[in-house]
Amino acid sequence: MDIKEINALLHQKKYKEVHQLTLDSNPVDLAELLNELEKEERGLCFRLLEKDKAAEVFSYMDNDIRKALLKTLSSQNVAELFEEMYVDDAVDFLEDMPSNVITNLLDNVDMKTRNQINQLLHYSKDSAGSIMTVEFIELYPTMSVKQALDKIRRVGIDSETVYTCYVVEKRKCLGIVTAKDLMIHDPETKIESLMKKEFIYAHTHDDREDIANKLRKYGLIAIPVLDAEGCIVGIVTFDDAIDVLTDETTEDMQKMAAMMANDKPYLSTSVLQHAYNRIGWLLILMLSATITGSIISRYEHAFEVLPILVSFIPMLMDTGGNCGSQSSTLVIRGLAIDEIKFKDIWKVLFKEFRVSLVVGCALALANGLRIFFIYKDLSLAIVVAVSLMATIVIAKIIGCCLPILAKKLKLDPAIMAAPLITTIVDTCSIMVYFSIATIIFKI
Amino acid sequence: MDIKEINALLHQKKYKEVHQLTLDSNPVDLAELLNELEKEERGLCFRLLEKDKAAEVFSYMDNDIRKALLKTLSSQNVAELFEEMYVDDAVDFLEDMPSNVITNLLDNVDMKTRNQINQLLHYSKDSAGSIMTVEFIELYPTMSVKQALDKIRRVGIDSETVYTCYVVEKRKCLGIVTAKDLMIHDPETKIESLMKKEFIYAHTHDDREDIANKLRKYGLIAIPVLDAEGCIVGIVTFDDAIDVLTDETTEDMQKMAAMMANDKPYLSTSVLQHAYNRIGWLLILMLSATITGSIISRYEHAFEVLPILVSFIPMLMDTGGNCGSQSSTLVIRGLAIDEIKFKDIWKVLFKEFRVSLVVGCALALANGLRIFFIYKDLSLAIVVAVSLMATIVIAKIIGCCLPILAKKLKLDPAIMAAPLITTIVDTCSIMVYFSIATIIFKI
Repeated sequence: MDIKEINALLHQKKYKEVHQLTLDSNPVDLAELLNELEKEERGLCFRLLEKDKAAEVFSYMDNDIRKALLKTLSSQNVAELFEEMYVDDAVDFLEDMPSNVITNLLDNVDMKTRNQINQLLHYSKDSAGSIMTVEFIELYPTMSVKQALDKIRRVGIDSETVYTCYVVEKRKCLGIVTAKDLMIHDPETKIESLMKKEFIYAHTHDDREDIANKLRKYGLIAIPVLDAEGCIVGIVTFDDAIDVLTDETTEDMQKMAAMMANDKPYLSTSVLQHAYNRIGWLLILMLSATITGSIISRYEHAFEVLPILVSFIPMLMDTGGNCGSQSSTLVIRGLAIDEIKFKDIWKVLFKEFRVSLVVGCALALANGLRIFFIYKDLSLAIVVAVSLMATIVIAKIIGCCLPILAKKLKLDPAIMAAPLITTIVDTCSIMVYFSIATIIFKI
Repeated sequence: MDIKEINALLHQKKYKEVHQLTLDSNPVDLAELLNELEKEERGLCFRLLEKDKAAEVFSYMDNDIRKALLKTLSSQNVAELFEEMYVDDAVDFLEDMPSNVITNLLDNVDMKTRNQINQLLHYSKDSAGSIMTVEFIELYPTMSVKQALDKIRRVGIDSETVYTCYVVEKRKCLGIVTAKDLMIHDPETKIESLMKKEFIYAHTHDDREDIANKLRKYGLIAIPVLDAEGCIVGIVTFDDAIDVLTDETTEDMQKMAAMMANDKPYLSTSVLQHAYNRIGWLLILMLSATITGSIISRYEHAFEVLPILVSFIPMLMDTGGNCGSQSSTLVIRGLAIDEIKFKDIWKVLFKEFRVSLVVGCALALANGLRIFFIYKDLSLAIVVAVSLMATIVIAKIIGCCLPILAKKLKLDPAIMAAPLITTIVDTCSIMVYFSIATIIFKI
């Protein structure tokens, strides 16, 4: 099924064929197709979907397109859509909207769904509460396996959310039972005797990235979310965790490249939004770079005497920037996936110091020899080589320390990445370079 | 349970207590604990684990530590360990070892396990084949739900791998049945009538990152892997897919910071290995930066007349580098998570061009005014502002095009990141800057 085929069928008013085609299609693929259709055809095609399929397809579509699509639906259709959607997907969509729009949209939605949605909308956007679903299987310790299976049959929510069931007494979570346990045990077995009492859980206000990392670390299908009293209020499933990990990594990369984090896809972000996300840091870094410039002006007399000195500035600055960026990237990533912790700061520092010595020697030697053979000037070769060595050591030390310190200060380590490190290292390396040059050449 | 407690118990020879403590512990946590223990205590503690728990704990431990640990085990123990381990975990561990070591290790392992391991070892390290497990539930179309549940009970592999079952006839995969279907349908229902014939699958030689992305996109618990004839040979589960996504992102980030990709954790990589991973690119980039240096030397007469020109070099270079790095980061990430495709190249180019105009105007204006007010020199302000504008446009265009072109040429887009882009943009910006300066100041 491709976009041309659908467009042709819609224009020939062959709605039954379109409906038939959508029946066997994967909702993710359908969502992609709807994203690409023109506005009119999209509305038409969407209304041809079966109710529950429509809700699933809707939850995979792009945000802007969803907003536009909603406007073309009757308030009754909107209500049905939200009732069919999984609550966490509905919340994910509504989260960024002004509250009066949300109220309007939920106007005709049944009381139970509306309450569930409103409850989840109260959690802050980065918390476990905001990505959890309230649809999960609650069992009681006194139930038998047969009763548990009956309940799953009755409740009938989607697969991932039934594969781990939660044993609850007075709303407190006592343990977990996997679907596999239910499948392989005798129907008369009591849930109490099957349940695992030691289990991994999260709290509603935990950071969503931490939850996702926990799910990844322990390879879980779902993780229960408990409130302050230890009562289970929802679960986070692996598919949402994967999305969180992907989004957080994208945000980290954006911050590491001196941009404000933006969770919209690249192509659907407007030019002005793109510009807005980038200008702030560029301005700050540009003005900081003028510090390096003013240091250079202080040494005008040096390069008036020896203009060749200027031509090594790009090499020193770039190498310093690259070295610092290597160290900071490794540390930022290590912190993000919990491989590096604050207590490792001395280990990291010592390691980076030794690495910088090895790398520094290799690069200083290569460049020193190159300069010596080209310019036949030993002093010049030494000045550049020593400055390079010092730059590399400084760059690696700054590059590895700042992200760890940022983490300790509860700042985002991703900010301490290449652009900022480069600017700091530039200033240091230019100072070192001209100091050494003025001493050795007695300028 | 913490490391001090375990050490104390081991030294007091309270082995039963240690064994008892490990029974309720999560294998991931146990693996972390064993990683931290000293060599002798580690061997002791490991031998106190139950056989199946030991195999699971082993699969979560660090590679170097596992190698050392194996040397302390009897060949009988080693054989039992590999027989208990999931085949994909065993392969994951053995993959990097020389073949004679593998042969030795598998010497006492039973024929079936050895054959399974050897079969998987044949797939290249980046393929779906190398991360799949051969343990999955095969059903036949004529089976009833009851027979299917009996089979799951009999085979008894771990949870994730039983939640999607594969309906097979003459080794060809006809469809899938979820565990939920089995749980909610009447025991006499035929599998044939339950199975979903449209399903997402992968091929053995597909890139492991593509598989992981497919699993993420469709939110699947597992994906079947088919060989060239359409026969099912294994499955990839979501937990392995998450690990692949995490590793691939880490590798991308390393490449984006001009390092060779390295899948070992930061702290357990040796200093020399770290240095080796970093020196190559640093040397290439350092020597490339000398091109910029030699362009500067060509304009020696310009800054002999007007030394102040030199002091704007860092600002121009840094801003160009940052602008290029912003664009390339967004595009590289977009390509990695399939948000941007080759066909979007003109859209991306046009978007970046417009963004560069907005950003360029803002930065040029800010800097032009700053220079005009500080130096009271309109020509200087214009030279710097125009150069800055040109640098930003060039940086954004190069930054967005190179990763997309790299992808088209089957190179890794991550190489076309900040460091390389910066070096290229530096050369361009310095050329533009001095050309404009010599024209306006008639030097």
